[in-house]
Formats: sequence, C-alpha cells, structure tokens
Amino acid sequence: MKIEPRTLKGFRDFLPKDARKRQYVLETLKRVFESYGFEPLETPALEYEEILSGKYGTEGDKLMYKFTDNGDRKVALRYDQTVPLARVVAQYQNDLPMPFKRYQMQNVWRAENTQRGRYREFLQVDADIVGTYSPLSDAEVIATAIKSLQLLGFKKIKILINDRTIFSKLVDQGIFSEAEMPKIIRAIDKIKKIGDEDVVKEIISEGFTQERAKKILEMIKNQEKTDTLNDISTYFESLNLDKEIFKFDPTLARGLDYYTGVIFEVEVEGYDVGSVAGGGRYDNLIGMFAGRDIPAVGFAFGFDRLMEAMDVLNLFPNELYATKVLLTFTNSELQKKAIKVADELRNDRINTEVYPEDATLEKQLKYADKKQIPFVIIVNENKLVLKNMIERTQEELSLEQILKNLK
Amino acid sequence: MKIEPRTLKGFRDFLPKDARKRQYVLETLKRVFESYGFEPLETPALEYEEILSGKYGTEGDKLMYKFTDNGDRKVALRYDQTVPLARVVAQYQNDLPMPFKRYQMQNVWRAENTQRGRYREFLQVDADIVGTYSPLSDAEVIATAIKSLQLLGFKKIKILINDRTIFSKLVDQGIFSEAEMPKIIRAIDKIKKIGDEDVVKEIISEGFTQERAKKILEMIKNQEKTDTLNDISTYFESLNLDKEIFKFDPTLARGLDYYTGVIFEVEVEGYDVGSVAGGGRYDNLIGMFAGRDIPAVGFAFGFDRLMEAMDVLNLFPNELYATKVLLTFTNSELQKKAIKVADELRNDRINTEVYPEDATLEKQLKYADKKQIPFVIIVNENKLVLKNMIERTQEELSLEQILKNLK
Repeated sequence: MKIEPRTLKGFRDFLPKDARKRQYVLETLKRVFESYGFEPLETPALEYEEILSGKYGTEGDKLMYKFTDNGDRKVALRYDQTVPLARVVAQYQNDLPMPFKRYQMQNVWRAENTQRGRYREFLQVDADIVGTYSPLSDAEVIATAIKSLQLLGFKKIKILINDRTIFSKLVDQGIFSEAEMPKIIRAIDKIKKIGDEDVVKEIISEGFTQERAKKILEMIKNQEKTDTLNDISTYFESLNLDKEIFKFDPTLARGLDYYTGVIFEVEVEGYDVGSVAGGGRYDNLIGMFAGRDIPAVGFAFGFDRLMEAMDVLNLFPNELYATKVLLTFTNSELQKKAIKVADELRNDRINTEVYPEDATLEKQLKYADKKQIPFVIIVNENKLVLKNMIERTQEELSLEQILKNLK
Repeated sequence: MKIEPRTLKGFRDFLPKDARKRQYVLETLKRVFESYGFEPLETPALEYEEILSGKYGTEGDKLMYKFTDNGDRKVALRYDQTVPLARVVAQYQNDLPMPFKRYQMQNVWRAENTQRGRYREFLQVDADIVGTYSPLSDAEVIATAIKSLQLLGFKKIKILINDRTIFSKLVDQGIFSEAEMPKIIRAIDKIKKIGDEDVVKEIISEGFTQERAKKILEMIKNQEKTDTLNDISTYFESLNLDKEIFKFDPTLARGLDYYTGVIFEVEVEGYDVGSVAGGGRYDNLIGMFAGRDIPAVGFAFGFDRLMEAMDVLNLFPNELYATKVLLTFTNSELQKKAIKVADELRNDRINTEVYPEDATLEKQLKYADKKQIPFVIIVNENKLVLKNMIERTQEELSLEQILKNLK
C-alpha cells in the first residue's frame, strides 16, 4: 500500500525559507526579553489531564487534545503556557527567584475549526512577571512589547490601554452588579468590530433594559484614567517612550475572564487584521495550584499574526539566508581546492557550501538560486570568480579580495 | 479538590538555569550547521499514524504515543525526525533544493522504560544531506559534527568510522549470507560493551557454529579501509582536520538496520557514558514515501548526553546569565532614576533588571544571588554604587565609568 505524504489539517511544516523567518523573529524577541531580565522556561508537551482540564472553560475542555497513554494515565497536550506556569510556580516554589520573570516560546495544540484560518498547532510567545503587584511590572511588560516590535522594525505602534478596576468601580457605584460584570465585558469587548449601537443591543440581549444598556455604555466611555494608569504613564516617561504610542481606551475589555487590573492591546500601522500582542494583570490565576493568590502580569504575541504583519510590512531583512556563498567547480580535480577555500571562508564566519558532486555549472547556479544563496564562487585551476547572484555581476578576484568584498 | 502540581514520569520542566544551558548549546550548533549550509526545518508534533507506524520496527510501534483525535483520525506523536524528513522530501519535491541540507531540533516522544535513565520527551538534533551519493557529503556531515564539538569547547574528540559495505563484501565472499548479515551486525554492535569472546557467543546463539563465528569475527577485524573511506580521509586533509581524530574500526556496526555505507560514532575524552553523536549513510530510507531510492547521509547528537558531557567537562561559560545587572533602590523616590539608568544600560546592550518593588537591600541582593546576576547597582540620591556579586567587592562610580567597567 502506498501511503500518501500529507499532514493533518491545521498542522504545518515549516520549510527552510519560513523556518528561517521564524527563527529571526524568535531570536530578536529573546534578545529583548532577556534585556529586561526575563528568563527562558520550558515545560512538557504532555501533562496530566487533571492539571489542564477545567482551566479553560467548557470550550477549552472541548478543544483540548486528550488521550489515555500506554500506562493508562489520562494525559493532555499543552493548551496554553499560563496553566503550566502556574503549575511550575507551585511545584518549585523554593527554587524560583521571586518575582519570577520568565518567557516561554513553545507550541500549543487546540482542535480548532480550521476554516476560520486557525491552526491546531501554533507557537505561543509569552512573557510574564509573577509575584509582585508593583505597577512598574505592568509598565515593564508593556515596554518589553514595544521594544520588541521596534527592534523588529515596526515604526508606528499603538498601545490601547485600560484598567479593569474601572469596571469594578462601576459595580461599587451600583451601575451594574458583580455578577453582571462578565456579561458587560463580553459585550463591550466587541465594540471595535460592531460599533456602539450594536454593543448596546448586545447588552440588551444579556437581559438589560435599553435605558440601562445605554447608560452603562455611556458611563464606561466617560471613565478617566486610574491612579495605576497614571503611575504607568510616569514610568513610560522615565523609559523615554513616546507618549503618542499610548491611548487610554475605557472600552477596551479583552475577552478573557481572568484579568484583574491593567489590560492592553498592541496594534501596528499598516496591518489591520487585529492586534499583534496583548496582555494585562491577572492576580487570581497563578496561585491555582499553590492554594493562595499570587499576583502576575504578562503579555503574549500572536505569533502567526506577528509573522504576517512582518510580511505585509516587508520587515524581514533581505540577507536572511543560511548560506552566503556556494563554491562551484566543473572539474572534480578542483573539489579539493574548493573545500580549502570554503574552510577559509568559514574561518571568517561566512556561511559557505561546497556543491557536493560533479555537475554542470548551470545546475549548480540553479541550486544557488533555489536556496537564495547570494554569492557563488566559481573555482578554476588558477583563478576564482565571484558571482553576485542578485545583481548578476561577476569578477575575477583573489581569495583575499573575496574575503574583503564579502565582509 | 486540590490538584497536586506534578509532571508525568519521563517528562521534564527546564527551569531557567537549565533552559539557558540548552539554548546556549542549540545556538552554537545552529551556527555551525548553518556555516555548512544546513537549513532549519520544522515538522508537526502530530502526524497521521499511518505515516509513522511500521517505520520503527515492532518496538517502535509499541513505544509510540498514538491516539484517536476529536475528528476520529488516527494520529501519533513524532517519534524521530527521519521519517518526517522522508515525508517532507516526498511532499514538497518541487519546492526543495536538491541536494537538500537540513537540520532539525525538535522534541520526540517515546513511552520508554524510564528506569533506564531514559526520557519520554527528549530533544533530537539532526543534520542530514539528502539527494546525493557523493562521499564529500559523508565527509561534510562528519566535519560538521567535529566543528560543532570544537566550538562547544571539547578538546579531544575521537571519530570511530567504518563502512557498512565491508559487511556486504563478506557476503560476496560467501562468509555469511545477506539474510544473516543483520544478525552479525547486531552481535558485533555489542563488541565494545561485552568484548570479543562474548560477541562470538552472541553469533553462536544466532545459530552459527563456533568455528564459523570465530572466523566471521576474525574476517571482520582484518578488513581494510574501503575506497570511500580513503576518499573521505583525503577530504579531511583538505578541511585541515587533525588525522589523529579518526580511527577506522571495522567492528563498528551501529545498531540501526537502515545504514548502507559509511557509519561513524563520536566520543569525547573525559566522558565515558558513550558516544555523544553518531550517524552514517542510509540510501534506501528517505525515498519511502516518494517511491524511489533517495540517497542520504546524516548524523544526530544525543542531546541529553551532550548536555551531560558539557557539565562533566565544565564547558559551559561562566557568564551564561540572562541578566547582567540588577538595579536596586531602597527609597521609592529613586525608582525613576533606576529606570533611567536601566534604559541607558540596555541601550548599551547590557541585560538589565530593575527590582520591581520596594524592598530591603538585603532582599534585593538575595534575589540577584538566586538569579545568578553578577552585578548590582545600588542607586542612591547622588551616587551609584557598583557591586560585583561574585567577588563581593563594591565601588562608587559614575554612570560612564559603570558602562566602561561592564564592557
């Protein structure tokens, strides 16, 4: 029986061209994360099911990849990186520095409906600070997101920012009840997509009168920055961040239930599909396994969106190749010479390949093109020819000249 | 119900200290792999079961993590990186450059008996050249392994090398039959562990007479280097590799059935648990989905062994920290100043943290120690004190002096 080579729906191979782009973005993000003191954490792909189940609502339980392993244990594939972080914080309480600043870049698996352009295996990129209520941490998390995007080359960044305590304040004022708050948040979360009028309708559909619904939306829109948000603004000034980047938006709600304080979303000009990053403070979640409240604030990049935005805005460097030079030769006697030249180039930290077998020059140049190798050296008995594959020019040069030219 | 925070047997969390070490090794390996023109490839964690099953023998089928997904598809977790490579080569024949040089660094899952010190989730690090029979590729794969270990700091490296065609030659000479060859290879594979005498016993136990068994072992030991091995030696000379590194060993067999030509194992002095890398040529495997023979040669690091060898030989750099400087302050008025200093340091590409909340200096210094941060700056109203946490010295300095000192 011939087996068809194919991948599961929602799962992707990343061939070198794409894998290199992913690596470039991840390495850039790591550099920024580490410049702020975030450290890497890795957790297993498989967890005991009981660790994950019930943590993501009924929808999450439905989309989770669960099975029984060879040892009859109920296990589940990683669904996000926050619940594993909560487990880690409880399991290694004495080994971890507190506050604990960690970043994590691992795949998660969700049996999503792929028709909506979602994937079933995708990379999550999270950075969180666990163990402090300090607004400086809120500010640092946002600064890390901004600096990351700036280093990736995004020029115009917008941070929409709000504080969930605004909604609690309205509860204190009797505008709606604690129990009604999640409904309001769910409705208001859609405001950018559906507009004011339809948000009012959404609130009404949750069982509110038209008058109350209108009043609630109006009250929310009239809220002013909280003390925490003002504190954060001060920090941003010290961090030399342009004030124009930040936009206080009292209608920003973010869907997830667990946020308790500052929340934010990051948009970049020229990419309109949606925010490329978002996050906030969630002080009641990380303690779930430790049995006590542990404050936390963090953010995540939507990695696939970020990659798409980089593509749309043409931000990937041109020289994003693995190999810089291909050594070609059309006479097997010259292979040894080619190998020696390659060794010299590599000693100069130039990524270099030797075409591995006898072939026509045409075939070797095609290979260089397909692999996007920008330079080819044609090795002859008593000369070297450097060919620029992008400009389609070539020149006879000594090895020393070539090394100089390629620097 | 309180859920105990725990991980599955054979699955590991990597806390920052270990995760940083892993990153260091992987980044070094990537650098060397790319210097030889290998490009990154990523494949999904989950494949259709039919893609993987039957490819790893009965043992493999038993150890594979298999289950039925929500859509009633039979799926399995990645078991190695070679079968997915074979699938990729068949699936994207027209998109891939040929020869195709790729490296892959992803987790695989095997339900091993963990009592033997094995893990159920572990990282594989593979580099392969697909699509050419050229011995230069064999040599390059071995050179890549050597250069990787050298860049990681290993001083004394030994390559045991052999050519499987030696065994085919003995078949041609009528010493044993084609059908008997796998049995002989399995027995001879144990020679380093159990010695000559017990290998003869092993061969006998496979149904050979004592006389034949002795003769077979003797014949194997008397084999000389093949033409291919001589070719490869010539390449190594061009690559400036020390001849002392290589040891031809006609009894080297390597367990796996699929090798067809040159095979090798890499040992490092000072680490006796076993080889840290191994590989060889396998010309009949990669074409399994394409329906034709596609030659290939490659190698893999035993990543966990490599990490252990690095530890045993003390090869990790001392300065393997994420954060280089912690800014401390004991008066919240000084936080703004600390944030500004941190920003200056980061602009100079120095990884810097600001302690995020009010705390005693003692507590802040403990945090630096726990996180192995080598420098602390104590921010005062009108001075900065730079504390070296390793030498336990401190000095009052200007910001310019600090920047100079930390370079």
